[in-house]
Amino acid sequence: MSFSAPVKDMLFNIEHLARIDRIAAIPGFEDAGLETARAVLEECARFNEAVVAPLNVEGDRNPSSWKDGVVTTTPGFRQAFQQYAEGGWQGLQHPVEYGGQGLPKTIGAACGEILNAANLSFALCPLLTDGAIEALLTAGSDELKATYLEKLISGQWTGTMNLTEPQAGSDLALVRTRAEPQAGPSGQPDGTYKIFGTKIFITYGEHDMAANIVHLVLARVAGAPEGVKGISLFVVPKFLVNADGSLGARNDVHCVSIEHKLGIKASPTAVLQFGDATAAKDVNGTGPGAVGYLVGEENRGLEYMFIMMNAARYAVGVQGVAISERAYQQAAAYAKERVQSRPVDGSVAGSTTIVHHPDVRRMLMTMRAYTEGCRAMASVAAAAYDAAHHHPDADTRRQNAVFYEFLVPLVKGYSTEVGQEVASLGVQVHGGMGFIEQTGAAQHYRDARILTIYEGTTAIQSNDLVGRKTVRDGGQTARAVAAQIEATEAELAASGSADAQAVARRLRAARAAFLDAVGFMAGQAKAEPNAVYAGSVPYLLLAGNLVAGWQMGRALLAAQAALAEGRDQAFMRAKIATARFYAEHILTKAPGLRDSIVEGAASVTALPLEAF
Amino acid sequence: MSFSAPVKDMLFNIEHLARIDRIAAIPGFEDAGLETARAVLEECARFNEAVVAPLNVEGDRNPSSWKDGVVTTTPGFRQAFQQYAEGGWQGLQHPVEYGGQGLPKTIGAACGEILNAANLSFALCPLLTDGAIEALLTAGSDELKATYLEKLISGQWTGTMNLTEPQAGSDLALVRTRAEPQAGPSGQPDGTYKIFGTKIFITYGEHDMAANIVHLVLARVAGAPEGVKGISLFVVPKFLVNADGSLGARNDVHCVSIEHKLGIKASPTAVLQFGDATAAKDVNGTGPGAVGYLVGEENRGLEYMFIMMNAARYAVGVQGVAISERAYQQAAAYAKERVQSRPVDGSVAGSTTIVHHPDVRRMLMTMRAYTEGCRAMASVAAAAYDAAHHHPDADTRRQNAVFYEFLVPLVKGYSTEVGQEVASLGVQVHGGMGFIEQTGAAQHYRDARILTIYEGTTAIQSNDLVGRKTVRDGGQTARAVAAQIEATEAELAASGSADAQAVARRLRAARAAFLDAVGFMAGQAKAEPNAVYAGSVPYLLLAGNLVAGWQMGRALLAAQAALAEGRDQAFMRAKIATARFYAEHILTKAPGLRDSIVEGAASVTALPLEAF
Repeated sequence: MSFSAPVKDMLFNIEHLARIDRIAAIPGFEDAGLETARAVLEECARFNEAVVAPLNVEGDRNPSSWKDGVVTTTPGFRQAFQQYAEGGWQGLQHPVEYGGQGLPKTIGAACGEILNAANLSFALCPLLTDGAIEALLTAGSDELKATYLEKLISGQWTGTMNLTEPQAGSDLALVRTRAEPQAGPSGQPDGTYKIFGTKIFITYGEHDMAANIVHLVLARVAGAPEGVKGISLFVVPKFLVNADGSLGARNDVHCVSIEHKLGIKASPTAVLQFGDATAAKDVNGTGPGAVGYLVGEENRGLEYMFIMMNAARYAVGVQGVAISERAYQQAAAYAKERVQSRPVDGSVAGSTTIVHHPDVRRMLMTMRAYTEGCRAMASVAAAAYDAAHHHPDADTRRQNAVFYEFLVPLVKGYSTEVGQEVASLGVQVHGGMGFIEQTGAAQHYRDARILTIYEGTTAIQSNDLVGRKTVRDGGQTARAVAAQIEATEAELAASGSADAQAVARRLRAARAAFLDAVGFMAGQAKAEPNAVYAGSVPYLLLAGNLVAGWQMGRALLAAQAALAEGRDQAFMRAKIATARFYAEHILTKAPGLRDSIVEGAASVTALPLEAF
Repeated sequence: MSFSAPVKDMLFNIEHLARIDRIAAIPGFEDAGLETARAVLEECARFNEAVVAPLNVEGDRNPSSWKDGVVTTTPGFRQAFQQYAEGGWQGLQHPVEYGGQGLPKTIGAACGEILNAANLSFALCPLLTDGAIEALLTAGSDELKATYLEKLISGQWTGTMNLTEPQAGSDLALVRTRAEPQAGPSGQPDGTYKIFGTKIFITYGEHDMAANIVHLVLARVAGAPEGVKGISLFVVPKFLVNADGSLGARNDVHCVSIEHKLGIKASPTAVLQFGDATAAKDVNGTGPGAVGYLVGEENRGLEYMFIMMNAARYAVGVQGVAISERAYQQAAAYAKERVQSRPVDGSVAGSTTIVHHPDVRRMLMTMRAYTEGCRAMASVAAAAYDAAHHHPDADTRRQNAVFYEFLVPLVKGYSTEVGQEVASLGVQVHGGMGFIEQTGAAQHYRDARILTIYEGTTAIQSNDLVGRKTVRDGGQTARAVAAQIEATEAELAASGSADAQAVARRLRAARAAFLDAVGFMAGQAKAEPNAVYAGSVPYLLLAGNLVAGWQMGRALLAAQAALAEGRDQAFMRAKIATARFYAEHILTKAPGLRDSIVEGAASVTALPLEAF
């Protein structure tokens, strides 16, 4: 099933919701206006539709495989990644100084969606590389930057994030991998470390798509404090790098196995052994152990890792949108082709394509509304990121930073939960054929299932939303967002159209529900932490639902205005219809979530542990 | 991961909600009281826990396979099925006259849940055999009954349902398989037919677990009317049966291939070719074609098939409960074992088992509440079935029949939609481990995905609920159910406990939402069929949610009474806590569904077809 990038919808968001005109007004982004966005997205669409998307099914049927420590990726992946690198796509958002294109996230994130919709498994390699680049840019020494950044940004090398250990998943306090400072000839520490330990769930931890792999690894330096305050971050390259930038000895980090997973099968999920490999080369004359280089300062590893993670969390949220889009396209195509049963309204005499049946329409509209709503939310978040990082005015930067930080758990948590629902609806639209692997709908369903888990489960996102983003400032940011939503409601209500009125009404109810939940969270956090965290995921779903619905409300207003100007009638009418559907079928879930959060907390923890 | 049958919860339902004392008062069921139920369920649990459940993982890793028309099932399945047959389990609910045990569905359905929770793939073979038995009992000639029933009921042979063809899924009007009446020596029709055509998605259409397979096949007799009124039902055995009951010639029905599916991999899903197999034996001297025997009268096949389907739909609903239970047990065990992070309330100093975390509790409680609610609903439906079929009083039979018919789409549609959500939460509780196939949580997620599709998708169930069960009598049955719920609310409100009050409040709101939806369905069906069917699935979800929540309310009252009598304190307290959780976290979804149904219909079909 071919894939067609939703460039038109992306450009609509970039123009009307993310307001790229304002981004292009920021010094350094003068060339990053709507026309640049259009050119980049169209080129991105061409490349991914032709080269990356066709490999998606292949990756599922012929996953990456492991033999004797070597991982061979799906046939075609290596060549496609080479083309990806040569096209400069890895450097899209990275600094020109290191060979990147320096484009704003507002454009880069849309390209990320296209890549992920084309092939989620393939896209994970660049996604993790982006995280490694971010960490080095923020905390790496000049030497580390000089050694690694250009190669990563050009796509010659790739990056990984090494956090998880068998006993340490969400709980990084339990990390046991250790780092031993090495002494130089003088007996003084020479700035290098030897790393020993086992890391699991390392995405693209080993593969054959690039000449070197730059692992960013959390480990404890001997004598460091217990818990998360004793974790440091290290660069551990697969091959050591000589002074001239050429590749040196093989480092003592080895892929012991890869996982047999439910989905994203082409993406190798590695178990990496650092040090104590029996046949390890004694790379620098001090015995086994993987040579590592400290990033930033000792014991600040978690802080740096969060830089990578925050970038990755946003990107995983975009994966949720991407899988939704792909699943929607496949389901819509099938629904327009499959003939089955007469329409209930008698409008066709015989059996007709199933897209005529109201419930198939309901499923497709649900898929579409979720996808467009989450895409719009991600686009607006990207613009906030750009303003937060590049706007000349400090106040504007700060406000946008706060807004972006509030949105990250929603983009990650809500878009991925939604992505699973959409992928499941995609199977359902196909009926029995959806359950047959050959059809392809099942792959999206399986692939999507990881998205609410990795880079922090939905519960971890919710803890972040509740603790750091809501309770810490007493609900101030959350209420400020609600105030912005109220302004959109007023605009919608002022508009004469029945569609706008309907959306305003549902937004109002959802916002009221949200404000109740915010009050509960901010008010009870100290006295009743269990009650607050019992509602954390429903709170995230409520907030995500509302913010995405708000963006659909803004989209409706923009589409009405564009219609009035005579622009792209079919697209604008579809946007208005989809916004209204979102309001009436998705925003309507908000009050129920409020009841569950505000009035149902006690029943979550009422059952004693021994009763489970 | 071992499985422990929830016998205690089943007996609670059977005693307090299904009221087995009333079933045992029906002539013929005198021996089918609570103690019989206990004995049968305990024996059923022993057998399935020991023999069938351990094969579940094996079936996923080593699915049934096809070679040259022969299907070899997962190692161990054949032996287990032999034990199943020898234990008399296939005949549990079937007439004593043909060697069955003649037990009420109230007991039999609980045994079905245990079998399905032990191994969904394995259980499908008996499930389809039950359907074939039902059809023959209802519509088969004495000769067909004499030839097939004892062998099916004893488990020596198995049965299948052959409906689907590539172009005819939900839409049976499109069935093309043809049946040609055969002439005997005198030139007159001899009562046999030759069947030609291709059937797909035939569960256990070919396998090695029994000596013969009795296919029940929908086909068109030459000259029959078009559409569903021209479909007849035939028995087509894999091996013809000699007059003495021994097996004769191989019939011309062959398994061309089996499907590669997302889940239930051990259950072979066959493509069956009837007739025109190139190497077909000319079994009765009239050339190729599968020999078939008409069931009942020509052109009434759909009516008979619905008998099988209604039994199968209820049974698939029970599969939804079963997979929920299995997924819950696995998740709860993991949550009590996996250590990760400190509790938010500081009740433990270090990292603790994740069952301490409120969101893990929320997920487990959601899984548990859905499972118990749907189990209770299925149990009550089974009792209605028994009364509808066996009660001496005609009015009581009729009332129970109407109630049962209303419940079937809820049991099928709601329990299976819920089963998928529960299986997905089961993956989520496991975090990253849930995505690794070895863990086993992913199998439940994959297996569950078929349940909302086969034996009629959720949309098909919803059409049944809306058209035949709600609109046809102007909402009378639906309102009668609501009146019963209102009575339960009154009992809850009259009870002094805060738990009962909370449940009464949420039931009241959900019932009001349901009544609005019923009014909309009954009122708009003629004028606005698209609007009504646009809300059909949300209406089913609302009705299922309400009825399951109602049963949890009844369960709470029963548990309070049992507590007062000093019975099983821990169990009764858990039941009360779970009922309240259901009310506050699941019933609270009802008003949102109402809004979507009653006020959101137009936006479902507003987008023009060409915009998809």
